[in-house]
Amino acid sequence: MTKPFLAALAGQRQKRPPVWLMRQAGRYLPEYREMRAKAPSFLDFCYTPEFAVEATLQPIRRFGFDAAILFSDILVMPDALGQSVSFETGEGPRLTPIETAQDFARLSEAPDWAKLAPVFAAVAGVRARLPAETALIGFCGAPWTVASYMIAGRGTPDQAPARLFAYRHPDLFSRLIDRLADASADYLARQIEAGAEAVQIFDSWSGVLPSAEFERWCVAPLRRLVARLRAQQPDVPIIAFPRGAATHLGRFAEVEGLAAIGLDTAADPHVAAAMLPARLALQGNLDPLALIAGGAALDAGVEAALEAFAGPRAHIFNLGHGILPETPIAHVEQMLARIRA
Amino acid sequence: MTKPFLAALAGQRQKRPPVWLMRQAGRYLPEYREMRAKAPSFLDFCYTPEFAVEATLQPIRRFGFDAAILFSDILVMPDALGQSVSFETGEGPRLTPIETAQDFARLSEAPDWAKLAPVFAAVAGVRARLPAETALIGFCGAPWTVASYMIAGRGTPDQAPARLFAYRHPDLFSRLIDRLADASADYLARQIEAGAEAVQIFDSWSGVLPSAEFERWCVAPLRRLVARLRAQQPDVPIIAFPRGAATHLGRFAEVEGLAAIGLDTAADPHVAAAMLPARLALQGNLDPLALIAGGAALDAGVEAALEAFAGPRAHIFNLGHGILPETPIAHVEQMLARIRA
Repeated sequence: MTKPFLAALAGQRQKRPPVWLMRQAGRYLPEYREMRAKAPSFLDFCYTPEFAVEATLQPIRRFGFDAAILFSDILVMPDALGQSVSFETGEGPRLTPIETAQDFARLSEAPDWAKLAPVFAAVAGVRARLPAETALIGFCGAPWTVASYMIAGRGTPDQAPARLFAYRHPDLFSRLIDRLADASADYLARQIEAGAEAVQIFDSWSGVLPSAEFERWCVAPLRRLVARLRAQQPDVPIIAFPRGAATHLGRFAEVEGLAAIGLDTAADPHVAAAMLPARLALQGNLDPLALIAGGAALDAGVEAALEAFAGPRAHIFNLGHGILPETPIAHVEQMLARIRA
Repeated sequence: MTKPFLAALAGQRQKRPPVWLMRQAGRYLPEYREMRAKAPSFLDFCYTPEFAVEATLQPIRRFGFDAAILFSDILVMPDALGQSVSFETGEGPRLTPIETAQDFARLSEAPDWAKLAPVFAAVAGVRARLPAETALIGFCGAPWTVASYMIAGRGTPDQAPARLFAYRHPDLFSRLIDRLADASADYLARQIEAGAEAVQIFDSWSGVLPSAEFERWCVAPLRRLVARLRAQQPDVPIIAFPRGAATHLGRFAEVEGLAAIGLDTAADPHVAAAMLPARLALQGNLDPLALIAGGAALDAGVEAALEAFAGPRAHIFNLGHGILPETPIAHVEQMLARIRA
């Protein structure tokens, strides 16, 4: 029997939608927080297979989600390309920003695969331990989103540093984006070799660009990444999550080789569906804050999502953004009971 | 002769698009910064007609924009409703957050019009001094956007406090939204009485809500506000600027009585136009960061906007968000030369 999550990605609508949550492995789980305290840093945690495997499995054991997503971070890519990356508790990521052609020249041409070996070991470890009905998702950040951190050296509310850099140094920025697209394709291919059964590409900051820049820095790099990945792994189902892409959703989804589009919280499922080719499955898009609020607001949000994605397209239930650390576990249970009723 | 900006709002496409910039009166101008230093606080500055008049006129003198927009702030409304509001230099607004029914009960039923009298005096003062071809725009914040500050007590990147409050206390939040809709309608009506010839409603934070919440907290309050305003001022052209509304644009624009929709930086003009009734003029949407970058990136951005809004609809040239303080004046001149060529 095909796993329900993979069947949905193949376009087969399931009787009840398969469900997983972005960031389902992580800080809202006490068992995760306890384990996290044992590693000296967040990157150490990501690069220690026993930690990454266990963190990936924790939400599966607790909630029986239809898919596990590897515990890792999109910023292992700049780390593997030789940029300095660290995570300050409560402050988010810090990177040595790329501000000049010299900074760019210091990056490696290709990722240091030895550095990423623990990630692939974790993928294999998870796959060996997953229940038969549960699928394993690998992932990476989209080139634009990863580049926005590499240029700014940190998370930024509007990605202004990367946007300005791209306006001022389009050729250099283009070389960075191409390098990320190629490296990310190869990175996903190796995750699949190690056991990932589907991949998601997170373009978390795609919602800030004008049309021409969206085409150049989001759509074209996705096309390049997907083509290179499929040349190595022709059959892997690919989910793209262009958060905030909004009126640009149609162009993003035109990229050949996608299986599904993840919709963010603010996307109207009906309007978005009308923009997207019928062959694509849809994933989303409960408000993570409704999951924090619980009660009637949560019930209403779950019902609204179930109705909005009522078909005939295949639907994968998810949030419209990552689950937040302060989310009560009882609310996740309430949500699941309703989806599975 | 009708002023070109007002003609465009009446649906008459102009040979070259009328142009103004959100936040055109303000910090990127040295003459503004010099004058601002004379007032003890930002709110004092807003409530002193000679300052507000002069700040409104400065960019008109310098650039000859087709419209002046009153120098003020959307948070004069909570101030007039009795909430404590202040602006910390470099930190943005600070309000005493509304967290309980008791906090809400302390708000006034209607604005303290005496407090807002200097705003209306400033409107009259600007109108008397404007060149004959220049129109005067009044404005307010949309209920959802203003409420997001009133609940959080400050600007927040994702409006999580207001979104959670609305999930947890929908009846109380609804009363706050209704109060803001009515007060804002009356506030705009008085700006028009004082001399404003058009108004813009800024829903700067409308881009974070799921469909049902967007309908309840953005669309319905806009309908209420516009209906109440038009009952007092049936002929005033109304521009709505639902920043980030994206796939929800069509529903926002269905509200009867709007003359134009302002598009944000990330809105695709063609996709957005297809969502909007043909009678509406479109305003937008050059990236404010292209205006900072200047050079070829700015030229390309201006050309892209001129082409994307090539017609047949009326177009008002603007940015997709407010002009940023670090914008070089020479770049504004470069942009205008190209639009006017």
